[in-house]
Amino acid sequence: MAFKIGLLGLGTVGTGTAQILQQPTGRHPMVQEIEIHKVGVRSLDKPRSVSLPSEVLTTDVEGIVTDPAVDIVVEVLGGLEPARSLILQAIAHGKHVVTANKAVISRYGDEIFTAANQAGVYVLLEAAVGGGIPVIQPLKESLGVNQISSITGIVNGTTNYILTKMQATGGAFTDILSEAQQLGYAEADPTADVDGLDAADKIAILASLAFGGRIKLQDIHCEGIRQVSAADIAYAEKLGFVIKLLAVAKRESTVDTSEEDLLQVRVHPTLVSTEHPLASISGVYNAILVEGEPIGQVMFFGPGAGAGPTASAVVSDIVNIAAVLKTGGKTEGLHPLLSCTHQHYCAIAPIGELVTRFYVRFLTKDHPGVIGSLGTCFGKQGVSLESIVQTGFQGDLAEIVVVTHDVREENFRQALEQMRTLDAVDSIPSILRVL
Amino acid sequence: MAFKIGLLGLGTVGTGTAQILQQPTGRHPMVQEIEIHKVGVRSLDKPRSVSLPSEVLTTDVEGIVTDPAVDIVVEVLGGLEPARSLILQAIAHGKHVVTANKAVISRYGDEIFTAANQAGVYVLLEAAVGGGIPVIQPLKESLGVNQISSITGIVNGTTNYILTKMQATGGAFTDILSEAQQLGYAEADPTADVDGLDAADKIAILASLAFGGRIKLQDIHCEGIRQVSAADIAYAEKLGFVIKLLAVAKRESTVDTSEEDLLQVRVHPTLVSTEHPLASISGVYNAILVEGEPIGQVMFFGPGAGAGPTASAVVSDIVNIAAVLKTGGKTEGLHPLLSCTHQHYCAIAPIGELVTRFYVRFLTKDHPGVIGSLGTCFGKQGVSLESIVQTGFQGDLAEIVVVTHDVREENFRQALEQMRTLDAVDSIPSILRVL
Repeated sequence: MAFKIGLLGLGTVGTGTAQILQQPTGRHPMVQEIEIHKVGVRSLDKPRSVSLPSEVLTTDVEGIVTDPAVDIVVEVLGGLEPARSLILQAIAHGKHVVTANKAVISRYGDEIFTAANQAGVYVLLEAAVGGGIPVIQPLKESLGVNQISSITGIVNGTTNYILTKMQATGGAFTDILSEAQQLGYAEADPTADVDGLDAADKIAILASLAFGGRIKLQDIHCEGIRQVSAADIAYAEKLGFVIKLLAVAKRESTVDTSEEDLLQVRVHPTLVSTEHPLASISGVYNAILVEGEPIGQVMFFGPGAGAGPTASAVVSDIVNIAAVLKTGGKTEGLHPLLSCTHQHYCAIAPIGELVTRFYVRFLTKDHPGVIGSLGTCFGKQGVSLESIVQTGFQGDLAEIVVVTHDVREENFRQALEQMRTLDAVDSIPSILRVL
Repeated sequence: MAFKIGLLGLGTVGTGTAQILQQPTGRHPMVQEIEIHKVGVRSLDKPRSVSLPSEVLTTDVEGIVTDPAVDIVVEVLGGLEPARSLILQAIAHGKHVVTANKAVISRYGDEIFTAANQAGVYVLLEAAVGGGIPVIQPLKESLGVNQISSITGIVNGTTNYILTKMQATGGAFTDILSEAQQLGYAEADPTADVDGLDAADKIAILASLAFGGRIKLQDIHCEGIRQVSAADIAYAEKLGFVIKLLAVAKRESTVDTSEEDLLQVRVHPTLVSTEHPLASISGVYNAILVEGEPIGQVMFFGPGAGAGPTASAVVSDIVNIAAVLKTGGKTEGLHPLLSCTHQHYCAIAPIGELVTRFYVRFLTKDHPGVIGSLGTCFGKQGVSLESIVQTGFQGDLAEIVVVTHDVREENFRQALEQMRTLDAVDSIPSILRVL
């Protein structure tokens, strides 16, 4: 018995998916049981690097999601529409769905999984986060028996490439971004990557899986890497840190004391100690660190994007669905680890409530007593300092770098507001959180 | 409907398993559906850090594996017998089995999985390799659609702790071993760890999963870390390497050209470039790097041992079996990704055929022309050199360190045999492979 898939899209990921299915040798025997029934494309005439019978290709994508012969719809179109509508239509027609679409899932997951549960079908999305890295399935199946306390990820390869390259060369953000665009590591419009929006989509999905509740994307505090300067990277290095764009989801309350989870979910450039497992993740690689009880720390590392890795994740989802379909005689219900059972939304703490360390860089007039007045402002808000370094001069101005101990973000911001009124303070060019 | 488990053993892992099951809050809802029906122990009176009703505890372990009420037998006794016999008895009585027992699976996997397939039951073993790190399930489910080309792992925490500590302190193997024994990181009889036998069990299991065939343990070339000296660690560091005990399984032939896979499967201390993802894995942590097509490299990192992490893996296996049992109405067959379908044994290449780089340290008389004669011996066997460093003196003897380019191991060994006959060569204290 073969399982028939309807593939929506034949771009890089779709092509990679077809290539795996067409070359089953050396892979799990289940791969042979998957048949490409239809492939929806925009143009039938475009030259392709994968060869498919002409009757398989069609521009009628609606015909695919309603085709009674199709068991599993594989959505690799990307973008919000028509992807969302096609996924919903496929579900309504009793199809299982595999998607690589983080944007759709992070925004419309509620609608999609509610529909899927009603229809009794699976929606799997391993490829939506971390490219080929198996992280969605481990979170659902292997790690679900833990009380997860945090997920910390480098989940955007473009920004990690830029930051790694800035670190290695001392180059400026805009120069390295242009270079990344030329190399194809960054898109012509880099907004989704460099402003952290892509990472926010991904941490929304990971947090939802780890903490068993849905996440509203607009509740995620999100800062990108445009403001990270070569100077900050150099100072961080001197202080024993590297700067990474981290996506963080963390349980604020302990499991035992709270009925509802209060979560931090945030994306921002972060100083990471060079000793930390995430510090050594360089270039376009991704890594996701999961902490829980009783497992401690586990980390998943690999290529966060690319046709091959993403297709590996897509095909693994297809095969997983086929395996479950093959196992159950008459299915009594959905597999409880593969399906999504979240009913509630998680409560997200406002960023002002975050307790964290900060790195801050000041430009001040070269007066005696400046460090003293900064220290006084911090002291009034209960901010204690881990290190304070007068590092040099920029023209007439002295450059002072401070790393705080843990402080409530709101109090820290108030201290900075007071400092901005000081005559001696010229500007505060950089404020970064420290892991 | 609750799934009833019979737990064989209530040591550290058994206790950790019971603790997770007794505190289901904040974990996947499936954890609540698992009921501890019986626990087999050696003594009923021993004080325990987990509280269980007295009717649950029993010394009659055979009674557990034959008890009609038990759905899943969880074997966390360790050791070969009675673990093997109890697993086989449980299977014969139609029980699914979860085990953390790498020694039994690596030696008797053939017998056990053949029996399990006949009986139509699952035998899961996530805890057998890498403690809590999800690696068995990703290999079976997420990565199986790839053509796996290699697995390279740091899979023994004790030896990684010792090597990391030797590196950090410059201490000698025997001193650091004693220290590790005092801290509980090494056992009183450290043989299985320091001689690489534990790592060999684990790579046998990983290779079997990755390459779809069974592995004979005696075919694995296995060297431990007793011969790794502080001097070697220091020289390696100067050359840009760290020394790690690696367990490696690698496909020698490409998928397309060979009907049968010819594999390298080996355990030995190895020089690893400090740039390599495995180089930064320190202390008792484990990491497993998997390479395949089209995924590229993925790595799994985490605690390789300990009650909590191992129990996390055990409970995830229990829940996975329960989830599949819950999904299938009347099961038509075993879930094709969770069951083991290997029929053949993989062919393992002899170590002499290995092509690799070598690090070798010579003690020679301080004559002119010694380096020349070493070079000549290497040259005769077609061994070309990447670097050759005269590093210093030990008493009257000069110490020379050489790193070769890729060479067939057999040829390299012949070159060394010739050198041992040279008057100028006093001894060859260290021979290590380079990743």
